Amino acid sequence: MSKIAVIGAGSWGTALAMVLADNGHQVHLWARRKEQIEEINDSHTNSQYLPGVVLPESIVGCHDMKAAVSDAETILLVVPTKAVRETVKQLINVISQPVTIIHASKGIEPGTHKRISEMIEEEFNGAHSLRNVVVLSGPSHAEEVSLRQPTTVTVSSKSHHASELAQDLFMNQHFRVYTNADLVGVEIGGALKNIIALVCGLTNGLGMRDNTKAAIMTRGLAEIARLGVKLGANPLTFAGLSGLGDLIVTCTSIHSRNFRAGQMIGQGKSLDEVLESMGMVVEGIRTTKAAHELATKLNVDMPITASLHAVLFAGLHPKEATEELMGRVKKHEVEQLSSDLLGGSNISN
Amino acid sequence: MSKIAVIGAGSWGTALAMVLADNGHQVHLWARRKEQIEEINDSHTNSQYLPGVVLPESIVGCHDMKAAVSDAETILLVVPTKAVRETVKQLINVISQPVTIIHASKGIEPGTHKRISEMIEEEFNGAHSLRNVVVLSGPSHAEEVSLRQPTTVTVSSKSHHASELAQDLFMNQHFRVYTNADLVGVEIGGALKNIIALVCGLTNGLGMRDNTKAAIMTRGLAEIARLGVKLGANPLTFAGLSGLGDLIVTCTSIHSRNFRAGQMIGQGKSLDEVLESMGMVVEGIRTTKAAHELATKLNVDMPITASLHAVLFAGLHPKEATEELMGRVKKHEVEQLSSDLLGGSNISN
Repeated sequence: MSKIAVIGAGSWGTALAMVLADNGHQVHLWARRKEQIEEINDSHTNSQYLPGVVLPESIVGCHDMKAAVSDAETILLVVPTKAVRETVKQLINVISQPVTIIHASKGIEPGTHKRISEMIEEEFNGAHSLRNVVVLSGPSHAEEVSLRQPTTVTVSSKSHHASELAQDLFMNQHFRVYTNADLVGVEIGGALKNIIALVCGLTNGLGMRDNTKAAIMTRGLAEIARLGVKLGANPLTFAGLSGLGDLIVTCTSIHSRNFRAGQMIGQGKSLDEVLESMGMVVEGIRTTKAAHELATKLNVDMPITASLHAVLFAGLHPKEATEELMGRVKKHEVEQLSSDLLGGSNISN
Repeated sequence: MSKIAVIGAGSWGTALAMVLADNGHQVHLWARRKEQIEEINDSHTNSQYLPGVVLPESIVGCHDMKAAVSDAETILLVVPTKAVRETVKQLINVISQPVTIIHASKGIEPGTHKRISEMIEEEFNGAHSLRNVVVLSGPSHAEEVSLRQPTTVTVSSKSHHASELAQDLFMNQHFRVYTNADLVGVEIGGALKNIIALVCGLTNGLGMRDNTKAAIMTRGLAEIARLGVKLGANPLTFAGLSGLGDLIVTCTSIHSRNFRAGQMIGQGKSLDEVLESMGMVVEGIRTTKAAHELATKLNVDMPITASLHAVLFAGLHPKEATEELMGRVKKHEVEQLSSDLLGGSNISN
């Protein structure tokens, strides 16, 4: 059993730390706030993020990053997308050993349009202390993982060996881990499903129900796949756990922050009001900006993303955006899906 | 505007009759029970199936099938799968004009493994009075359609002209209709999603939550597609409204009978108790039998369907079935999906 440093003690970092501790690993869980670390060490709870859950006593809370990562060959990085670069810079300052970084964040960086693994690699800038980067993604609400509900996820990396290492660290009876060689597809699917969840929430806030939501999710997955394929992803990845699976859980679950944020916007709240009342990061908002920029640059048609972008950043009324989306006349479904998924060519049937 | 006979006044037949009436067509809605027809004509309600909904006054209820279909060029058939053959036999006896039949049923016949359109064609046995058969399918709870919630569906037929005719009849501001040339894929997707909804309900009844449901739905769509492709369907159809879309709405909505039936089974009720307490047809149960027979005959791997079949018809405990399903070790996701969707060949990535 190995020592693993978990960087970020939000709900997802803490739930994943619990899986690793259940598997007998020596887990050091880092967070910046001293009171949070004291609570983790003294009461074995992290009540702000996982209320009512008791953590394994073997999890050691640290607010000293150097102590947390010392002698750890594996670092699990679970911070919001916008904190990734800064956190990696801090890590580079305190590690002396070569490490594999497994990340479980979901987003794309506005401006650069980099995926999380690309941001990590860029910060390390070829330093040999970075062995490999692995992403862990899939349909997995932290709350349910912390309750040891049956959950399945995907890990992916440029290195197959590193994916298998991550698979072995996390796999147990409740938490099933699949490998997938398509790093681009896994990261893009995880990031972009938050956009679709925001739109599903938005239509719900406007009073629309399950039929509408299913249509948005179906067309949403197609537009995610369309961008992914343009970026080099395998289209089948979007039919798997980190694509379709994660989309389902994020768009249909009461736990989803992105859905809830979208719902408030649909009900007429402003973006600022929503962000203030959530108190947690809503990744989909920045991802909408990044994905819309990327789609525009690469000339990929993403009508749902474009509509949400117009609502969030250009003052379009949610009702107008939705009516336009639902009213688009695309008469021949499979022809459009062929072009969505296969990047322009049609499958004849 | 044309005269259209709607055969079957359950919730879905009635909701579709409302769409047609909203579009200005002359709709005759047939049901066997005289009291139900009287209620439709006198109170403009169908309270057993669509409680609280007021029907357009232009809908004419009929319990005389001959009167209902007289002069109608289009017949919309919306009856349970097991009533299709008998109802078509009755229709053949009373029609004298050539007709196009649009059906909106979802199932496969146990024993023969025929799809609905095949059963209809078989009963007409080449008679020239059957012009074309069209299927209408997609993510569309009747309750929401009757409330004019934004809804999208797919129509498909061997005849593109007939699909377009159906599209024109139904299309309106709230109800968007796409065509898809893949009749096999549209009918198989609609039928088999009920199996997955039963299993999602079953795991919910056992206390499992959203992470598990998303995994079952993801793997479920893959096994539906696997069977569909073997039967000649276009794999992309399963990523569309009649595949993924309908799966989402059926597995995640409070309206789904199949989900509720599965939930009761997961809670320990027997199949007989469930069927008795539902009071409506649960299509997925017979479809599980038919799909399992078909998968066995064609040597297609359908682990979720096989597990449910064992629970429903061979006394396997739901908990054992689910644990086995969630515990299956498939280490490499995309390799398996390639083989699922492309019928055996692997995409290299």
